[in-house]
Amino acid sequence: MRRIKLTIEYDGGPYVGWQHQENGPSVQEAIEKAIYDFCGAEARLFTAGRTDAGVHALGQVAHFDLDTELSTGTIRDALNQHLRPQPIAVLKAEDVNGEFHARFSAKRRHYLYRIIARRAPLALEKTRAWQVFRPLDAAAMHEAAQALTGKHDFTTFRATQCQADSPVKTLDEINVFETGGEVHVTASAKSFLHSQVRSMVGSLKLVGEGKWAATDLKDALDAADRTRCGPVAPAHGLYLARVDY
Amino acid sequence: MRRIKLTIEYDGGPYVGWQHQENGPSVQEAIEKAIYDFCGAEARLFTAGRTDAGVHALGQVAHFDLDTELSTGTIRDALNQHLRPQPIAVLKAEDVNGEFHARFSAKRRHYLYRIIARRAPLALEKTRAWQVFRPLDAAAMHEAAQALTGKHDFTTFRATQCQADSPVKTLDEINVFETGGEVHVTASAKSFLHSQVRSMVGSLKLVGEGKWAATDLKDALDAADRTRCGPVAPAHGLYLARVDY
Repeated sequence: MRRIKLTIEYDGGPYVGWQHQENGPSVQEAIEKAIYDFCGAEARLFTAGRTDAGVHALGQVAHFDLDTELSTGTIRDALNQHLRPQPIAVLKAEDVNGEFHARFSAKRRHYLYRIIARRAPLALEKTRAWQVFRPLDAAAMHEAAQALTGKHDFTTFRATQCQADSPVKTLDEINVFETGGEVHVTASAKSFLHSQVRSMVGSLKLVGEGKWAATDLKDALDAADRTRCGPVAPAHGLYLARVDY
Repeated sequence: MRRIKLTIEYDGGPYVGWQHQENGPSVQEAIEKAIYDFCGAEARLFTAGRTDAGVHALGQVAHFDLDTELSTGTIRDALNQHLRPQPIAVLKAEDVNGEFHARFSAKRRHYLYRIIARRAPLALEKTRAWQVFRPLDAAAMHEAAQALTGKHDFTTFRATQCQADSPVKTLDEINVFETGGEVHVTASAKSFLHSQVRSMVGSLKLVGEGKWAATDLKDALDAADRTRCGPVAPAHGLYLARVDY
């Protein structure tokens, strides 16, 4: 039995999320079906992060076990062939040892959130970035966001349905900057709570609009109270960018 | 009567191109219909560049005449409202004097062509960039492309159905560079022949793959022979980026 690590890109738009669910197509199901279609194996995929409905991935990671002598290049190409025409692409397939686990071996997860602030609708990026209608002060957002780094009780920025045992997490890094007419928020941590990035981004938007001061964001964090979170940013601006092992 | 200049972004995918045609929806028709729907005027749009089917725009320019006292902000918002949910956005509406003509007053047109070289399918940029399957040498492409700048007979890089009086054009600038995992080609000129950018990009791809030397590109140009052009690059990688007046 070989353990195969996949690096995956997808458009989250058509899916109920990464994880298999009864109410619609999932990314996990699509790839598991592609594995079955190409070699008849009923493999189960384990992933670094269960992205929500609508969330995209530039570098999601998953692993599965397979009894095969095919090269990793052949496995990658065969999966892509069977995934067509769905917007899911296997960028890489690699052999890893049996100790490797996509979820538990992950050292750091990196997310990107794209915001476009303008009045005219988005003709090209409508399903790929969050449109906001007032200009954002990215420098003020960045400065305020620094209060979120380090080890904190992130209850304020955690979805009520979050299943993690503890709301305490360590946020390694968060950056807000302008690039190519957009505002990008990047966040890195060993792990995140459910909806943590979208919750933080939704609150940072209030800072960017001048509705919240930096101290309001810090107070919201310190309150450890979900009702203190700003409106959660929509899924379609979020990308699971990379996972480090 | 006021003359209004529009700056427009669109996804060319669903359209037969800018220009009104019998065989499907056009961008021109969509905007003319939005003008009619919001104020009852049967305006005619004149454009800086008649983009082909599938070609996108980041900053297309068009003008029309309208008898109205509404502010340009209101005109922009009303057009966007009536264009919904089509992937066409009016970024700006401005008053210009009666001498202004979107096509004839244009001093410089700027195009962008996006190429992604990789083996895995494009999950996110499938309709927004040209996927090629071999790595490209962007530096070699850039160097070879410099032979195209200046005043030349561009017959080699001109669609057979091109209606321009002369195949002689002056290409002000062409650049090829890598950015964010993509290869971008930017080209600027007062005006271009039909399919000129896509024809040049298709030939430059051969240089990037090592199939053509820089001298092959120059020889193809000098031959002024359409049969010497490389396979024309697809429409969906091309963007009309900006028009200067």
